[in-house]
Amino acid sequence: MSRAFNFNAGPAALPEVVLLEAQKHLLNFNGTGMSVMELSHRSKDYEEVHNSAQSQLRKLLQIPDNYEILFVQGGASLQFSMVPMNLLSEDKTGYYVLTGAWSEKALKEAQKVGNTKILASTKEENYRSIPQLDLDLLQEDAAYLHITSNNTIYGTQWQSFPDLKVPLIADMSSDILSRPLDISKFGLIYAGAQKNLGPSGVTVVIVKKDLISEPLDHLPTMLNYQTFSKNNSLYNTPPTFAIYLLKLVLDWVENEGGLAALERKNIEKAKYLYDAIDESDGFFKGHASKESRSNMNVTFTLPTEDDTKNFLDAAKKQGFIGLNGHRSVGGCRASIYNAVPLEHVQRLAEFMKTYR
Amino acid sequence: MSRAFNFNAGPAALPEVVLLEAQKHLLNFNGTGMSVMELSHRSKDYEEVHNSAQSQLRKLLQIPDNYEILFVQGGASLQFSMVPMNLLSEDKTGYYVLTGAWSEKALKEAQKVGNTKILASTKEENYRSIPQLDLDLLQEDAAYLHITSNNTIYGTQWQSFPDLKVPLIADMSSDILSRPLDISKFGLIYAGAQKNLGPSGVTVVIVKKDLISEPLDHLPTMLNYQTFSKNNSLYNTPPTFAIYLLKLVLDWVENEGGLAALERKNIEKAKYLYDAIDESDGFFKGHASKESRSNMNVTFTLPTEDDTKNFLDAAKKQGFIGLNGHRSVGGCRASIYNAVPLEHVQRLAEFMKTYR
Repeated sequence: MSRAFNFNAGPAALPEVVLLEAQKHLLNFNGTGMSVMELSHRSKDYEEVHNSAQSQLRKLLQIPDNYEILFVQGGASLQFSMVPMNLLSEDKTGYYVLTGAWSEKALKEAQKVGNTKILASTKEENYRSIPQLDLDLLQEDAAYLHITSNNTIYGTQWQSFPDLKVPLIADMSSDILSRPLDISKFGLIYAGAQKNLGPSGVTVVIVKKDLISEPLDHLPTMLNYQTFSKNNSLYNTPPTFAIYLLKLVLDWVENEGGLAALERKNIEKAKYLYDAIDESDGFFKGHASKESRSNMNVTFTLPTEDDTKNFLDAAKKQGFIGLNGHRSVGGCRASIYNAVPLEHVQRLAEFMKTYR
Repeated sequence: MSRAFNFNAGPAALPEVVLLEAQKHLLNFNGTGMSVMELSHRSKDYEEVHNSAQSQLRKLLQIPDNYEILFVQGGASLQFSMVPMNLLSEDKTGYYVLTGAWSEKALKEAQKVGNTKILASTKEENYRSIPQLDLDLLQEDAAYLHITSNNTIYGTQWQSFPDLKVPLIADMSSDILSRPLDISKFGLIYAGAQKNLGPSGVTVVIVKKDLISEPLDHLPTMLNYQTFSKNNSLYNTPPTFAIYLLKLVLDWVENEGGLAALERKNIEKAKYLYDAIDESDGFFKGHASKESRSNMNVTFTLPTEDDTKNFLDAAKKQGFIGLNGHRSVGGCRASIYNAVPLEHVQRLAEFMKTYR
């Protein structure tokens, strides 16, 4: 059976070895005679999966001991609310950098909770780049600064992260695990799993313990980070199968050589496509400014909308999946997350050249 | 490979044919060369799964057209908050019937949102039965009446449902699909999937449309039922694999003959265990009053705590999984949801007799 050339933006390609492992044990995990899905979330067998996913993530990202790793449901979209509900008090302000549609949504949810300010935005230039920050604008009232580290729709990515005196909060849904990270720069990181971490249905939250030490008993129990930290994310039944897949993906990342090795591979993969764009004499036009280009999502257009449509049709016929740009902006987008094989990217780059 | 005798309370046993089907296509769903987990949630292939899960559920439960079927994350525990946030206005009161720990939790979350009253409770008798309701106590201020249709921890189940003038809200996490239901009696039904519907990670909400017609834009987007109803539960990425499994379980229910057939089978299964209790001359003692007995969770104790412990140890050695009572009450509990085969229940009943 041949694997599809899957360039979906998320849910996205998973490592073949992960799927083969899950398939092999789907009816009999660890000799139990049960699927992982059928295990009690209080059983020793499941708790080993759960704890191993956490410790493996801690190892790969070198997460210090003063950070908690939580497994939450609801996707990044629920984090847009949980972050301000937990971290934004009445006398404080949540600062936001707008770099795309997801940052806008995060801001919109925070506005329902408390005071917010936009520190910087590249909306006026259709989110082609990551803005320079004037950190002097971060006033003393700042509860935190929220950013979106990679913008799937526009194909931009933060190349480095600022050192702040207030907690830096990052939505890393679409580039977590794509490169090494200095966790100590961040107060809280969250990521829906369905790009680099696993299947949809689980959201990883990495949070500095002192940020969630205050009791917030007025909050709905399931929206309080303390509920998750105090109960090892087992207050109620977690999405056990999604966490099992997450664990398998993390094992795969380790086998690939860890984050430094993945970063090299991701740079190489992205270069194939950006070269195909840059060497096309303007036939393919990248959406993102060069200095803000994402190694996860490569966005481009052709000279006319008809050209773009014809290209997408031809690519589809060749078996390339998921190259349509997000329905809100159009154009083309190739999502090349960790699990997309180099050979598939090379094949796409070849196709782009041949098509031209 | 032999299947375990799985009496877990949830996550629980799934039908073997469902797991075999999922296993077979895990790397290549519908000839796509991708796993269901790797499909875009906006793709035709996935949307067919999604819509088919809804229409299959509508057919099996005979859900009228004026009800929506929503797929939410966060488990029943998040519904404890979403129900009052969406349905309880300032001048109204949410009425609750307490029949166990889960009803108590539902009430506790509602108390954070607005006015509540307890209509009836069997807490004083350690939740051995479902109370008679004095419906005259339901005042004009009632926004709704909330019940828990089956109480996993105590092994009690509502045998019939009242006709009310206000919306009846039911947490059916542990007995949905176990018997035919007159949906028109209910305003809203919710159920975490991990007992009778599928794996953990998706929660089904069935709600009368006119109950969620008012705009509630102040709510977090992900906690507003309208977000789900207006976007066919595709506002953000849903837990696609869990919904796929749900769909396979629903197909299995249809192949089993539908809900009437399952109800007959569930009564038969439960009778084996209740007979083993009732014919034991008091050696096994059922926790639930006979008229409130659950066909999903059979709870019992032995003469002394040591006896109970010895029985559980012996059962474990014989390969019976998950017979320990909930950590909050102790004793023994056999959960015999739809997917637990009759033969496994017969085997347990035999073991109980032999052990005595």
